[in-house]
Amino acid sequence: MLRQAQHEFVIRTRGRGLHEFTDELEHWVAQGALQTGLVTLHIKHTSASLLIQENADPDVRRDLDAFFARLVPDGDRLYVHTAEGDDDMPAHVRSAITPVNLSIPVAAGRLALGTWQGVYVWEHRTHPHTRRVAAHFIGE
Amino acid sequence: MLRQAQHEFVIRTRGRGLHEFTDELEHWVAQGALQTGLVTLHIKHTSASLLIQENADPDVRRDLDAFFARLVPDGDRLYVHTAEGDDDMPAHVRSAITPVNLSIPVAAGRLALGTWQGVYVWEHRTHPHTRRVAAHFIGE
Amino acid sequence: MLRQAQHEFVIRTRGRGLHEFTDELEHWVAQGALQTGLVTLHIKHTSASLLIQENADPDVRRDLDAFFARLVPDGDRLYVHTAEGDDDMPAHVRSAITPVNLSIPVAAGRLALGTWQGVYVWEHRTHPHTRRVAAHFIGE
Repeated sequence: MLRQAQHEFVIRTRGRGLHEFTDELEHWVAQGALQTGLVTLHIKHTSASLLIQENADPDVRRDLDAFFARLVPDGDRLYVHTAEGDDDMPAHVRSAITPVNLSIPVAAGRLALGTWQGVYVWEHRTHPHTRRVAAHFIGE
Repeated sequence: MLRQAQHEFVIRTRGRGLHEFTDELEHWVAQGALQTGLVTLHIKHTSASLLIQENADPDVRRDLDAFFARLVPDGDRLYVHTAEGDDDMPAHVRSAITPVNLSIPVAAGRLALGTWQGVYVWEHRTHPHTRRVAAHFIGE
Repeated sequence: MLRQAQHEFVIRTRGRGLHEFTDELEHWVAQGALQTGLVTLHIKHTSASLLIQENADPDVRRDLDAFFARLVPDGDRLYVHTAEGDDDMPAHVRSAITPVNLSIPVAAGRLALGTWQGVYVWEHRTHPHTRRVAAHFIGE
Protein backbone atom coordinates (compact mmCIF):
# COMPACT_ATOMS: atom_id res chain seq x y z
CA MET A 1 0.00 0.00 0.00
CA LEU A 2 1.21 3.51 -0.81
CA ARG A 3 2.56 5.56 2.06
CA GLN A 4 4.87 8.50 2.58
CA ALA A 5 7.80 9.55 4.78
CA GLN A 6 9.57 12.84 5.45
CA HIS A 7 12.98 13.88 6.72
CA GLU A 8 15.17 16.94 7.02
CA PHE A 9 18.83 16.53 6.12
CA VAL A 10 21.22 18.91 7.87
CA ILE A 11 24.39 19.43 5.84
CA ARG A 12 27.31 21.38 7.23
CA THR A 13 29.23 22.82 4.29
CA ARG A 14 32.88 23.84 4.37
CA GLY A 15 32.25 26.89 2.19
CA ARG A 16 31.75 27.29 -1.56
CA GLY A 17 31.65 24.10 -3.58
CA LEU A 18 29.90 20.76 -3.97
CA HIS A 19 29.22 18.66 -0.87
CA GLU A 20 28.09 15.13 -1.67
CA PHE A 21 25.38 13.47 0.45
CA THR A 22 24.42 10.53 -1.80
CA ASP A 23 25.29 8.02 0.93
CA GLU A 24 23.10 9.69 3.60
CA LEU A 25 20.27 9.89 1.08
CA GLU A 26 20.60 6.24 0.00
CA HIS A 27 20.72 5.22 3.66
CA TRP A 28 17.49 7.08 4.42
CA VAL A 29 15.79 5.53 1.37
CA ALA A 30 16.96 2.02 2.33
CA GLN A 31 15.80 2.21 5.94
CA GLY A 32 12.32 3.40 4.88
CA ALA A 33 11.48 -0.10 3.71
CA LEU A 34 9.79 1.32 0.59
CA GLN A 35 10.86 -0.52 -2.55
CA THR A 36 9.29 1.62 -5.26
CA GLY A 37 8.39 5.28 -5.39
CA LEU A 38 9.60 8.85 -5.68
CA VAL A 39 12.02 10.89 -3.56
CA THR A 40 11.84 14.70 -3.69
CA LEU A 41 14.37 17.10 -2.15
CA HIS A 42 14.02 20.84 -1.53
CA ILE A 43 16.79 23.05 -0.14
CA LYS A 44 15.44 25.67 2.25
CA HIS A 45 17.88 28.46 1.30
CA THR A 46 18.31 31.04 -1.46
CA SER A 47 22.12 30.97 -1.55
CA ALA A 48 22.72 27.23 -2.07
CA SER A 49 21.45 24.65 -4.58
CA LEU A 50 21.00 20.90 -5.09
CA LEU A 51 22.89 19.29 -7.93
CA ILE A 52 23.16 15.88 -9.50
CA GLN A 53 26.60 15.65 -11.07
CA GLU A 54 29.47 13.30 -11.85
CA ASN A 55 31.08 11.89 -8.72
CA ALA A 56 34.03 10.14 -10.35
CA ASP A 57 36.68 12.74 -11.32
CA PRO A 58 37.08 15.61 -8.79
CA ASP A 59 38.29 17.81 -11.67
CA VAL A 60 34.66 18.08 -12.81
CA ARG A 61 33.81 19.85 -9.55
CA ARG A 62 36.90 22.04 -9.83
CA ASP A 63 35.93 23.02 -13.40
CA LEU A 64 32.31 23.75 -12.43
CA ASP A 65 33.64 26.12 -9.76
CA ALA A 66 35.91 27.78 -12.36
CA PHE A 67 33.06 28.24 -14.84
CA PHE A 68 30.78 29.79 -12.22
CA ALA A 69 33.55 32.04 -10.87
CA ARG A 70 33.79 33.49 -14.37
CA LEU A 71 30.04 33.59 -15.14
CA VAL A 72 28.92 35.01 -11.77
CA PRO A 73 32.02 36.67 -10.27
CA ASP A 74 32.14 37.89 -6.67
CA GLY A 75 32.30 41.64 -6.14
CA ASP A 76 30.52 42.42 -9.44
CA ARG A 77 29.80 46.19 -9.61
CA LEU A 78 26.42 45.38 -11.18
CA TYR A 79 24.75 44.70 -7.82
CA VAL A 80 23.00 46.91 -5.25
CA HIS A 81 22.30 44.11 -2.73
CA THR A 82 25.74 43.73 -1.12
CA ALA A 83 24.87 43.84 2.60
CA GLU A 84 26.45 40.48 3.39
CA GLY A 85 29.54 40.92 1.23
CA ASP A 86 30.98 40.31 -2.22
CA ASP A 87 29.58 36.77 -2.41
CA ASP A 88 26.02 37.68 -1.29
CA MET A 89 24.24 38.54 -4.56
CA PRO A 90 26.35 36.09 -6.64
CA ALA A 91 25.03 33.33 -4.33
CA HIS A 92 21.42 34.35 -5.10
CA VAL A 93 22.14 34.43 -8.85
CA ARG A 94 23.79 30.99 -8.73
CA SER A 95 20.78 29.58 -6.87
CA ALA A 96 18.48 30.99 -9.61
CA ILE A 97 20.29 29.22 -12.48
CA THR A 98 20.90 25.88 -10.74
CA PRO A 99 18.32 23.51 -9.14
CA VAL A 100 16.81 23.92 -5.66
CA ASN A 101 14.55 20.85 -6.06
CA LEU A 102 15.33 17.31 -7.17
CA SER A 103 12.91 14.42 -7.82
CA ILE A 104 14.33 10.95 -8.28
CA PRO A 105 12.37 7.72 -8.83
CA VAL A 106 13.18 4.74 -6.57
CA ALA A 107 13.18 1.17 -7.88
CA ALA A 108 14.14 -2.04 -6.02
CA GLY A 109 14.86 0.06 -2.91
CA ARG A 110 17.44 2.27 -4.65
CA LEU A 111 17.48 5.74 -6.24
CA ALA A 112 17.35 5.49 -10.06
CA LEU A 113 20.66 7.35 -10.43
CA GLY A 114 23.02 6.77 -13.32
CA THR A 115 26.34 5.03 -12.72
CA TRP A 116 28.30 8.26 -12.24
CA GLN A 117 25.62 10.43 -10.65
CA GLY A 118 26.05 11.78 -7.13
CA VAL A 119 23.71 14.11 -5.19
CA TYR A 120 25.23 17.32 -3.85
CA VAL A 121 24.48 20.42 -1.84
CA TRP A 122 26.10 23.25 -3.79
CA GLU A 123 27.22 25.90 -1.32
CA HIS A 124 27.40 29.29 -3.05
CA ARG A 125 28.65 31.35 -0.10
CA THR A 126 32.37 31.62 0.64
CA HIS A 127 32.06 30.68 4.32
CA PRO A 128 30.76 27.40 5.81
CA HIS A 129 26.99 27.21 6.43
CA THR A 130 24.48 24.76 7.89
CA ARG A 131 22.03 23.85 5.11
CA ARG A 132 18.63 22.19 5.56
CA VAL A 133 17.16 19.94 2.86
CA ALA A 134 13.52 18.85 3.18
CA ALA A 135 12.98 15.31 1.86
CA HIS A 136 9.74 13.57 0.90
CA PHE A 137 9.33 9.92 -0.09
CA ILE A 138 6.12 8.40 -1.42
CA GLY A 139 5.92 4.77 -2.45
CA GLU A 140 5.21 1.25 -1.37
CA MET B 1 -5.40 7.99 3.71
CA LEU B 2 -3.43 9.35 0.76
CA ARG B 3 -5.31 11.46 -1.75
CA GLN B 4 -4.56 14.12 -4.34
CA ALA B 5 -5.83 17.52 -5.46
CA GLN B 6 -5.22 19.71 -8.51
CA HIS B 7 -5.55 23.39 -9.31
CA GLU B 8 -4.57 25.90 -11.97
CA PHE B 9 -3.23 29.24 -10.77
CA VAL B 10 -3.79 32.16 -13.15
CA ILE B 11 -1.18 34.89 -12.59
CA ARG B 12 -1.45 38.23 -14.39
CA THR B 13 2.07 39.63 -14.66
CA ARG B 14 2.88 43.31 -15.11
CA GLY B 15 5.73 42.56 -17.54
CA ARG B 16 9.28 41.33 -17.00
CA GLY B 17 10.24 40.53 -13.43
CA LEU B 18 9.35 38.40 -10.43
CA HIS B 19 5.69 38.16 -9.37
CA GLU B 20 5.23 36.53 -5.97
CA PHE B 21 2.31 34.16 -5.36
CA THR B 22 3.43 32.48 -2.12
CA ASP B 23 0.26 33.62 -0.32
CA GLU B 24 -2.13 32.21 -2.94
CA LEU B 25 -0.17 28.96 -2.90
CA GLU B 26 -0.16 28.69 0.92
CA HIS B 27 -3.88 29.46 0.93
CA TRP B 28 -4.60 26.65 -1.53
CA VAL B 29 -2.45 24.21 0.49
CA ALA B 30 -4.16 25.21 3.76
CA GLN B 31 -7.72 24.83 2.46
CA GLY B 32 -7.00 21.34 1.08
CA ALA B 33 -7.02 19.91 4.59
CA LEU B 34 -3.95 17.79 3.79
CA GLN B 35 -1.33 18.00 6.55
CA THR B 36 1.59 16.15 4.99
CA GLY B 37 2.61 15.62 1.40
CA LEU B 38 4.13 17.08 -1.73
CA VAL B 39 3.13 20.07 -3.87
CA THR B 40 4.32 20.25 -7.50
CA LEU B 41 3.99 23.27 -9.79
CA HIS B 42 4.42 23.42 -13.57
CA ILE B 43 4.23 26.63 -15.62
CA LYS B 44 2.49 26.07 -18.97
CA HIS B 45 4.62 28.52 -20.99
CA THR B 46 8.03 28.65 -22.66
CA SER B 47 8.72 32.33 -21.99
CA ALA B 48 8.24 32.45 -18.19
CA SER B 49 9.64 30.44 -15.26
CA LEU B 50 8.95 29.51 -11.64
CA LEU B 51 11.49 30.62 -9.06
CA ILE B 52 12.02 30.22 -5.34
CA GLN B 53 14.01 33.24 -4.19
CA GLU B 54 14.53 35.63 -1.30
CA ASN B 55 11.42 37.71 -0.55
CA ALA B 56 12.95 40.08 2.01
CA ASP B 57 15.06 42.71 0.18
CA PRO B 58 13.57 43.91 -3.17
CA ASP B 59 17.13 44.71 -4.31
CA VAL B 60 17.68 40.97 -4.81
CA ARG B 61 14.98 40.99 -7.47
CA ARG B 62 16.40 44.15 -9.04
CA ASP B 63 19.88 42.59 -9.15
CA LEU B 64 18.58 39.33 -10.66
CA ASP B 65 16.98 41.40 -13.42
CA ALA B 66 20.28 43.26 -13.95
CA PHE B 67 22.28 40.02 -14.17
CA PHE B 68 19.88 38.48 -16.69
CA ALA B 69 19.73 41.68 -18.77
CA ARG B 70 23.50 41.35 -19.19
CA LEU B 71 23.63 37.55 -19.65
CA VAL B 72 20.66 37.27 -22.05
CA PRO B 73 20.26 40.77 -23.55
CA ASP B 74 17.24 41.73 -25.64
CA GLY B 75 17.86 42.37 -29.33
CA ASP B 76 20.88 40.05 -29.47
CA ARG B 77 22.02 39.69 -33.11
CA LEU B 78 22.72 36.00 -32.46
CA TYR B 79 19.07 34.99 -32.97
CA VAL B 80 17.01 34.02 -36.02
CA HIS B 81 13.67 33.58 -34.15
CA THR B 82 12.64 37.23 -33.68
CA ALA B 83 9.02 37.15 -34.90
CA GLU B 84 7.56 38.51 -31.66
CA GLY B 85 10.23 41.13 -31.04
CA ASP B 86 13.54 41.77 -29.31
CA ASP B 87 12.48 39.99 -26.10
CA ASP B 88 11.09 36.84 -27.82
CA MET B 89 14.12 34.54 -28.06
CA PRO B 90 15.71 35.93 -24.85
CA ALA B 91 12.52 34.85 -23.05
CA HIS B 92 12.94 31.27 -24.36
CA VAL B 93 16.62 31.22 -23.33
CA ARG B 94 15.78 32.50 -19.84
CA SER B 95 13.12 29.80 -19.44
CA ALA B 96 15.72 27.15 -20.42
CA ILE B 97 18.22 28.15 -17.69
CA THR B 98 15.71 28.76 -14.87
CA PRO B 99 13.10 26.35 -13.44
CA VAL B 100 9.69 25.61 -15.00
CA ASN B 101 8.79 23.02 -12.32
CA LEU B 102 8.95 23.20 -8.53
CA SER B 103 8.31 20.42 -5.98
CA ILE B 104 7.97 21.37 -2.32
CA PRO B 105 7.23 19.04 0.60
CA VAL B 106 4.37 19.99 2.95
CA ALA B 107 4.57 19.35 6.71
CA ALA B 108 2.06 20.34 9.40
CA GLY B 109 -0.14 21.88 6.70
CA ARG B 110 2.55 24.27 5.44
CA LEU B 111 5.06 24.32 2.58
CA ALA B 112 8.57 23.42 3.82
CA LEU B 113 10.00 26.74 2.64
CA GLY B 114 12.95 28.41 4.32
CA THR B 115 12.44 31.60 6.32
CA TRP B 116 13.22 33.93 3.43
CA GLN B 117 11.92 31.85 0.53
CA GLY B 118 9.07 33.11 -1.63
CA VAL B 119 7.54 31.45 -4.71
CA TYR B 120 7.45 33.53 -7.90
CA VAL B 121 6.34 33.52 -11.50
CA TRP B 122 9.26 34.98 -13.43
CA GLU B 123 7.89 36.84 -16.43
CA HIS B 124 10.54 37.00 -19.16
CA ARG B 125 8.56 39.03 -21.71
CA THR B 126 8.57 42.84 -21.60
CA HIS B 127 4.78 43.18 -21.73
CA PRO B 128 2.20 41.88 -19.21
CA HIS B 129 0.92 38.33 -19.77
CA THR B 130 -1.57 35.92 -18.21
CA ARG B 131 0.37 32.88 -16.99
CA ARG B 132 -1.10 29.49 -16.04
CA VAL B 133 0.55 27.29 -13.40
CA ALA B 134 -0.68 23.70 -13.01
CA ALA B 135 -0.55 22.55 -9.37
CA HIS B 136 -0.68 19.03 -7.96
CA PHE B 137 -0.89 18.06 -4.28
CA ILE B 138 -0.60 14.51 -2.98
CA GLY B 139 -0.72 13.74 0.72
CA GLU B 140 -2.89 12.91 3.70
CA MET C 1 -7.46 4.27 -5.74
CA LEU C 2 -3.96 5.76 -5.93
CA ARG C 3 -1.31 3.62 -7.54
CA GLN C 4 2.03 4.09 -9.28
CA ALA C 5 3.87 2.96 -12.40
CA GLN C 6 7.48 3.16 -13.59
CA HIS C 7 9.23 3.04 -16.92
CA GLU C 8 12.62 3.71 -18.45
CA PHE C 9 12.70 5.58 -21.75
CA VAL C 10 15.68 4.84 -23.98
CA ILE C 11 16.40 7.76 -26.32
CA ARG C 12 19.01 7.47 -29.07
CA THR C 13 20.27 10.99 -29.79
CA ARG C 14 21.89 12.06 -33.05
CA GLY C 15 24.44 14.26 -31.26
CA ARG C 16 24.17 17.72 -29.69
CA GLY C 17 20.74 19.30 -29.71
CA LEU C 18 17.13 18.84 -28.62
CA HIS C 19 15.45 15.46 -29.24
CA GLU C 20 11.69 15.53 -28.67
CA PHE C 21 9.95 12.57 -27.01
CA THR C 22 6.59 14.15 -26.12
CA ASP C 23 4.70 11.54 -28.16
CA GLU C 24 6.38 8.54 -26.48
CA LEU C 25 5.71 10.13 -23.10
CA GLU C 26 2.04 10.90 -23.85
CA HIS C 27 1.64 7.35 -25.16
CA TRP C 28 3.02 5.88 -21.93
CA VAL C 29 0.76 8.12 -19.84
CA ALA C 30 -2.31 7.20 -21.91
CA GLN C 31 -1.77 3.45 -21.73
CA GLY C 32 -1.36 3.55 -17.94
CA ALA C 33 -5.10 4.10 -17.53
CA LEU C 34 -4.47 6.70 -14.81
CA GLN C 35 -6.55 9.84 -15.35
CA THR C 36 -5.14 12.18 -12.72
CA GLY C 37 -1.74 12.38 -11.12
CA LEU C 38 1.88 13.37 -11.45
CA VAL C 39 4.61 12.27 -13.88
CA THR C 40 8.27 12.71 -12.90
CA LEU C 41 11.25 12.23 -15.22
CA HIS C 42 14.93 11.90 -14.29
CA ILE C 43 17.76 11.62 -16.81
CA LYS C 44 20.45 9.19 -15.67
CA HIS C 45 23.43 11.09 -17.15
CA THR C 46 25.60 14.08 -16.31
CA SER C 47 26.15 15.27 -19.88
CA ALA C 48 22.53 15.58 -21.06
CA SER C 49 19.42 17.33 -19.73
CA LEU C 50 15.62 17.32 -19.90
CA LEU C 51 13.94 20.42 -21.26
CA ILE C 52 10.41 21.65 -21.79
CA GLN C 53 10.53 24.13 -24.66
CA GLU C 54 8.59 25.46 -27.63
CA ASN C 55 7.97 22.79 -30.28
CA ALA C 56 6.49 25.02 -32.99
CA ASP C 57 9.32 26.98 -34.69
CA PRO C 58 12.57 24.96 -35.17
CA ASP C 59 14.48 28.28 -35.09
CA VAL C 60 13.95 28.35 -31.31
CA ARG C 61 16.03 25.18 -31.02
CA ARG C 62 18.66 26.56 -33.41
CA ASP C 63 18.89 29.77 -31.35
CA LEU C 64 19.15 27.87 -28.05
CA ASP C 65 22.09 25.96 -29.52
CA ALA C 66 23.68 29.24 -30.65
CA PHE C 67 23.27 30.84 -27.20
CA PHE C 68 24.80 27.83 -25.44
CA ALA C 69 27.66 27.58 -27.95
CA ARG C 70 28.60 31.13 -26.95
CA LEU C 71 27.96 30.78 -23.19
CA VAL C 72 29.64 27.37 -22.75
CA PRO C 73 32.00 27.02 -25.73
CA ASP C 74 33.75 23.75 -26.55
CA GLY C 75 37.52 23.68 -26.09
CA ASP C 76 37.48 26.37 -23.37
CA ARG C 77 41.00 26.69 -21.89
CA LEU C 78 39.44 27.11 -18.43
CA TYR C 79 39.00 23.38 -17.92
CA VAL C 80 41.25 20.63 -16.51
CA HIS C 81 38.80 17.74 -17.09
CA THR C 82 39.25 17.19 -20.84
CA ALA C 83 39.77 13.40 -21.00
CA GLU C 84 36.87 12.78 -23.36
CA GLY C 85 37.49 15.77 -25.62
CA ASP C 86 36.60 19.42 -26.17
CA ASP C 87 32.89 18.85 -25.51
CA ASP C 88 33.36 16.83 -22.27
CA MET C 89 33.41 19.50 -19.56
CA PRO C 90 31.07 21.86 -21.49
CA ALA C 91 28.51 19.01 -21.41
CA HIS C 92 28.79 18.78 -17.60
CA VAL C 93 28.41 22.58 -17.25
CA ARG C 94 25.36 22.58 -19.54
CA SER C 95 23.76 19.81 -17.48
CA ALA C 96 24.34 21.90 -14.30
CA ILE C 97 22.48 24.97 -15.58
CA THR C 98 19.58 23.16 -17.30
CA PRO C 99 17.10 20.65 -15.78
CA VAL C 100 17.79 16.95 -15.18
CA ASN C 101 14.36 16.37 -13.57
CA LEU C 102 10.86 17.30 -14.74
CA SER C 103 7.55 16.92 -12.88
CA ILE C 104 4.32 17.42 -14.80
CA PRO C 105 0.77 17.06 -13.46
CA VAL C 106 -1.64 14.85 -15.42
CA ALA C 107 -5.34 15.74 -15.78
CA ALA C 108 -8.00 13.94 -17.84
CA GLY C 109 -5.37 11.40 -18.91
CA ARG C 110 -3.06 14.01 -20.46
CA LEU C 111 0.08 15.88 -19.36
CA ALA C 112 -0.76 19.45 -18.27
CA LEU C 113 1.55 20.95 -20.91
CA GLY C 114 0.93 24.33 -22.48
CA THR C 115 -0.13 24.56 -26.13
CA TRP C 116 3.42 24.97 -27.46
CA GLN C 117 5.33 22.91 -24.91
CA GLY C 118 7.25 19.82 -25.98
CA VAL C 119 9.42 17.53 -23.81
CA TYR C 120 13.01 17.02 -24.95
CA VAL C 121 16.22 15.19 -24.15
CA TRP C 122 18.95 17.80 -24.58
CA GLU C 123 22.07 16.04 -25.78
CA HIS C 124 25.15 18.07 -24.79
CA ARG C 125 27.81 15.82 -26.36
CA THR C 126 28.81 16.24 -30.00
CA HIS C 127 28.40 12.56 -30.87
CA PRO C 128 25.22 10.42 -30.70
CA HIS C 129 24.51 8.72 -27.36
CA THR C 130 21.93 6.36 -25.88
CA ARG C 131 20.23 8.20 -23.00
CA ARG C 132 18.10 6.63 -20.26
CA VAL C 133 15.26 8.53 -18.62
CA ALA C 134 13.63 7.07 -15.48
CA ALA C 135 9.89 7.82 -15.35
CA HIS C 136 7.51 7.62 -12.38
CA PHE C 137 3.74 8.09 -12.48
CA ILE C 138 1.53 8.25 -9.39
CA GLY C 139 -2.20 8.84 -9.67
CA GLU C 140 -5.60 7.26 -9.99
